[in-house]
Amino acid sequence: MKKSFKNKKIVCLGGGTGTSILLSGLKKYPVNLSAVVSMADSGGSNRVIRDEFGLLPTSDIRQCLVALSEEKGDSEWILRKLFVYRFVRGKGTKGMTFGNLFMAALADILGSQKEAIKKISQVLKIKGRVLPVTFDNSNLVAIYENGKKVVGEHFIDEPRHDGRLKIKRAYLKPESRVNPEAAKAILEADLIIIGPGDLYTSLIVNLLVKGIVEVVRKTRAKIIYILNLMTRYGQTHGLAAKDHVQALEQYLGKNCLDFVLVNSKSIPKTALKKYEKENEFPVIDDLKDSYFKVIRGNFLSEKETKKVAGDILKRSLIRHDSDKLAKAIINLCKQ
Amino acid sequence: MKKSFKNKKIVCLGGGTGTSILLSGLKKYPVNLSAVVSMADSGGSNRVIRDEFGLLPTSDIRQCLVALSEEKGDSEWILRKLFVYRFVRGKGTKGMTFGNLFMAALADILGSQKEAIKKISQVLKIKGRVLPVTFDNSNLVAIYENGKKVVGEHFIDEPRHDGRLKIKRAYLKPESRVNPEAAKAILEADLIIIGPGDLYTSLIVNLLVKGIVEVVRKTRAKIIYILNLMTRYGQTHGLAAKDHVQALEQYLGKNCLDFVLVNSKSIPKTALKKYEKENEFPVIDDLKDSYFKVIRGNFLSEKETKKVAGDILKRSLIRHDSDKLAKAIINLCKQ
Repeated sequence: MKKSFKNKKIVCLGGGTGTSILLSGLKKYPVNLSAVVSMADSGGSNRVIRDEFGLLPTSDIRQCLVALSEEKGDSEWILRKLFVYRFVRGKGTKGMTFGNLFMAALADILGSQKEAIKKISQVLKIKGRVLPVTFDNSNLVAIYENGKKVVGEHFIDEPRHDGRLKIKRAYLKPESRVNPEAAKAILEADLIIIGPGDLYTSLIVNLLVKGIVEVVRKTRAKIIYILNLMTRYGQTHGLAAKDHVQALEQYLGKNCLDFVLVNSKSIPKTALKKYEKENEFPVIDDLKDSYFKVIRGNFLSEKETKKVAGDILKRSLIRHDSDKLAKAIINLCKQ
Repeated sequence: MKKSFKNKKIVCLGGGTGTSILLSGLKKYPVNLSAVVSMADSGGSNRVIRDEFGLLPTSDIRQCLVALSEEKGDSEWILRKLFVYRFVRGKGTKGMTFGNLFMAALADILGSQKEAIKKISQVLKIKGRVLPVTFDNSNLVAIYENGKKVVGEHFIDEPRHDGRLKIKRAYLKPESRVNPEAAKAILEADLIIIGPGDLYTSLIVNLLVKGIVEVVRKTRAKIIYILNLMTRYGQTHGLAAKDHVQALEQYLGKNCLDFVLVNSKSIPKTALKKYEKENEFPVIDDLKDSYFKVIRGNFLSEKETKKVAGDILKRSLIRHDSDKLAKAIINLCKQ
């Protein structure tokens, strides 16, 4: 008899669009979901939130909250719309994400960002929990193969240097400690999913938080890594699937993965052409079963993602499909 | 047998703090409430909303929405808190009211301010309706007794000129037409309450909207005017109760009122001293029963109003009590 997936404790470790795609698929199943989310974003309105409000960046948290929010109610619908809205007008507000201002105001009213996240989780009636990986304020630092040091997630994400260079080492400055609630969720999990997401700025950035690797290695949970579809100029240019796994192993240690999910459906040429202009290419699948099992399938979204009005950041058109990913993961839970 | 007040149609005509105090008292009774609210505010974050967003000012609407909102739910509590929150940080946001940004974002998402007001009324689960007196963008103009012309509500409210001067005439520039829904509410009302509120910038400003006076004169509703407690430097300096009524009559016409509510409870001296510094004094009650009936009573709030953090506007400490006002009005409904 197959095992039941009901009430399985699933932790998604990441941040950014990839994690929110995964969460919006998984929330449709009766599982116990936690998102452990990176806190080192420094671009766009996060800079304002960090520098001018003295708060931790909230974009990744915000995206996960929206992904997990209740979709039925009229009020929830409008709050979700507002949460992702970016101001197109106003000298002081243009380009700012409304949801970030919402969370900053709430943190001020309730006295802390921790309380603000809890309260907004109630307001949006989210399915599961969103846990910041840390409550310490720090920046991602990347040392490239030529010795160049880049400080700040958005300078790695949107490089001003030669983005073809490989990252040799990454660390957080100053050091940050794991949020105890996030550590507990990982320790108690049945399944941990790393990715999809930018290898350094959404995934490894979490592993650099002091205390995370220890719990990931200690937990009895199965660990799945969802390989990215495309390389990213500035952080994974020229890396094949094996290189992605090796980069994770550099921080997590050997034998850390149970499964690697790889999309095997080919990506439409029109979309690829747009990415080529940005120096971004499909990740070559050179993986073989190793201490982990490789699971291949069609995980590609067929929807075209539209650019949101006022959006000043580059968004991907080539994305994973939330339902296909969730289905594959639930199948793994049944094994 | 006394008449029942149940389902009576009550329209509060005004805007600003006075109207919101009245509404929060009346909402506790099973009456059919509409607030018809002024739309010519030009100070504080309304300037940003008008000039940078190209929208109509929303502060008065926002205050009325909060006053009428459901007080029970946890989500509603936090939304009300957020709605009145003023940013204390952020280069582009400091001094801005969160609720105004909320409504600006919503107007953008839904395509109009009218739709935004409807939607936010649902989200806040308000008891009754908030109706802008007009959807036209215009400014209040005051001509003072010395011929001086002042354009813009906040320059009348917080004068840079000699605030002891009397206003000879007021008008809107450009002309604005009444919102048909507001006109309908007035025509169908059982009771219309004008005030409490700043005589020119919260009350008469509504009467200047084309089409309003016609429906107020046409309606079979009883009309109550709630006299202000204090004079206001810049608009009603030196005016006694009779002068207030005469100013209203200048726009509404003679024989327009059924009742005038006057507070007869004396105001604490400590509070009066603070007002004296701002050149503001109790309105002298020189009224006698006329074509209208004068109703005197203790309508004074005993709560001290605290200054909200980040509040850059002057707020009154001497206020009407919402429950006392509501009780007196419900008693009138029973007659």
